[in-house]
Amino acid sequence: MGEESSGFSNTVEVCFSPVLFPVYFQDKDTVVVVIDVFRATTAICSAIDHGVEAVIPVATLEEATDYKQKGFIVGAERSAEVVEGFDFGNSPLFFKNGEFKGKTIVLTTTNGTKAIEMAKEASKVVIGSFSNLDAVADYVERLDKNVILLCAGWKDRFNLEDTLFAGALAQKLALNLRFSDLADSTQASIKLYNAAKDDMYGFLGESSHRKRLSRLNLEEDIIYCLKLNKSTNVPVLKDGKIVKG
Amino acid sequence: MGEESSGFSNTVEVCFSPVLFPVYFQDKDTVVVVIDVFRATTAICSAIDHGVEAVIPVATLEEATDYKQKGFIVGAERSAEVVEGFDFGNSPLFFKNGEFKGKTIVLTTTNGTKAIEMAKEASKVVIGSFSNLDAVADYVERLDKNVILLCAGWKDRFNLEDTLFAGALAQKLALNLRFSDLADSTQASIKLYNAAKDDMYGFLGESSHRKRLSRLNLEEDIIYCLKLNKSTNVPVLKDGKIVKG
Repeated sequence: MGEESSGFSNTVEVCFSPVLFPVYFQDKDTVVVVIDVFRATTAICSAIDHGVEAVIPVATLEEATDYKQKGFIVGAERSAEVVEGFDFGNSPLFFKNGEFKGKTIVLTTTNGTKAIEMAKEASKVVIGSFSNLDAVADYVERLDKNVILLCAGWKDRFNLEDTLFAGALAQKLALNLRFSDLADSTQASIKLYNAAKDDMYGFLGESSHRKRLSRLNLEEDIIYCLKLNKSTNVPVLKDGKIVKG
Repeated sequence: MGEESSGFSNTVEVCFSPVLFPVYFQDKDTVVVVIDVFRATTAICSAIDHGVEAVIPVATLEEATDYKQKGFIVGAERSAEVVEGFDFGNSPLFFKNGEFKGKTIVLTTTNGTKAIEMAKEASKVVIGSFSNLDAVADYVERLDKNVILLCAGWKDRFNLEDTLFAGALAQKLALNLRFSDLADSTQASIKLYNAAKDDMYGFLGESSHRKRLSRLNLEEDIIYCLKLNKSTNVPVLKDGKIVKG
């Protein structure tokens, strides 16, 4: 978008896959919001909301196993299921009784933690989910920098649910005149969100990942992941750990 | 989409950037439709419609220069403008008086010819544009294979106009029950096309490339590129040349 920039507005670009991230991420001063609605970033928000002190995101099962051996509580998900031998997968409901208050936990997932790893050179990495949509919008606005909304996707492919969240967030940012330089991907995301917002559950009815989670009887997770503004917490990456921002 | 496949239907996946193509292209038996609405694939269709025998797509200016020195008519476009020393850029209007009937010409463009080059290992490479939408849909249906709709994008980024064409084509394919396995990217493209179809010119009003072309006074090209079904020709790649399929 550089060539179109007016010089007075911040760019808002939606990146639909971690594979595309190097194309969009041209300036380390950029803010990156990592989005994995079903379910990694929603689970991280839920962990922080329920008192977890910090979440260490790791990209590989090897790193996760190392932490497990050191006595950490470790979540590991691959292809939507809990990996055998770990404490949990990436269900946001795992944290709801608050039993991990004050603890530092570890998480590796198919898509989300990989996206966080890719974004770590950015000036700020923010964890976005519908559960903290408005809080993330306010936080990002205050930073007043160019923004990339990085959709974790599904195994490097575009997915609908992350795009809807990107559209919801971009639309809020676009209300602020300092975020008026919207990439084509951002415009598309906003249009899709507005088509979906009155019934996101229905809109996602044919989406590949909602179908995948339904087959695994994770409807309760889906409903949690699509609920807006349960929380005002904004988890951010700090020294390799995700903590309350 | 493999894991969701019923086994009786062909997948239709929209790939939003050449960078993502290796993620989607897992099987050489797939058909790839290359899409660069503004303007490379529309220009190629126009060339074939106006009697050009074959278009040789080349990825680099060096190759284009070699052909020029051998006496070919060579088009070269970078960042929407004709490269100095070449015969034309990628305006579809260049061919309208039919003066290149029966000739083999050469073309290199910012995005489109790069996408064609990437797709060349596929079982069939088809050139898609709004000007031959219905003809491409019929042709691809008859091939009865998995399909990737490869959007050339803009410098590896998502763009709206290629997505709209992908949505239009995917929607036609989806009417045929053998093309019922629609990826999330395909569902998104169809929804965007339906939101846009009554006024594509207006819908694209804020798109980055339409603005870019408008600044260069290429409104007439834009109007040509958005007109549906001017032609029943289906250009395809055969032995490194694009010819009537």
